[in-house]
Amino acid sequence: MFKEILRNIVEQSGGAIGAVLMGYDGIAVDEFFREGVEEDLARMSVEYSASLKEIRQAAGILNTGAMEEVSIKTGRHQLIVRSLNDEYFVALTLEAGGNFGKGRFLLMREAHALREALS
Amino acid sequence: MFKEILRNIVEQSGGAIGAVLMGYDGIAVDEFFREGVEEDLARMSVEYSASLKEIRQAAGILNTGAMEEVSIKTGRHQLIVRSLNDEYFVALTLEAGGNFGKGRFLLMREAHALREALS
Repeated sequence: MFKEILRNIVEQSGGAIGAVLMGYDGIAVDEFFREGVEEDLARMSVEYSASLKEIRQAAGILNTGAMEEVSIKTGRHQLIVRSLNDEYFVALTLEAGGNFGKGRFLLMREAHALREALS
Repeated sequence: MFKEILRNIVEQSGGAIGAVLMGYDGIAVDEFFREGVEEDLARMSVEYSASLKEIRQAAGILNTGAMEEVSIKTGRHQLIVRSLNDEYFVALTLEAGGNFGKGRFLLMREAHALREALS
């Protein structure tokens, strides 16, 4: 059920590499990668999950409302993370030239379905 | 010199609250806030700067190219951060409904001028 939603996000985003549904503890629930992808996206999400936890804490300290979305652009990738609830987030990785706006929209659109599937 | 560039970014972005030029050590070089702003944006950037350092390290470990941009959306704000060099970044805070794309574009456009002014 999770994989189908992740597949939809990846296949409909332009230039997506893969998507991961993951806990803030760094453990992946499910993932979908485009064929032929050699990047270790699970490892990427694990590395970043510590930073996400810190950002969430900072947002809490600052009382600016819950963390909803974080995006990270590096020389070779774009990562878009959407918080689903207190325990889980979904992360989409795009190539550097991928369609950031479309990816962001799809994560927002599918967040509800992922939340439902988690509950 | 820094303040003029920061002012341009804030005044040209739709729904911007303020902009800060800051070191990764959490010390602000300069800042510009829209009149009447009561939010403590400097404190916000300090709280997030630890997370930014972590993200930078993660990008290094993962060998995905240098961190260029990070954005954080919470219930009440959008924060867009653009890395300038190894020591400094510029952060723009927008209201939740502010123009994210325009803010992102302006930071990208002014990054060169800020880098020049820093050197």
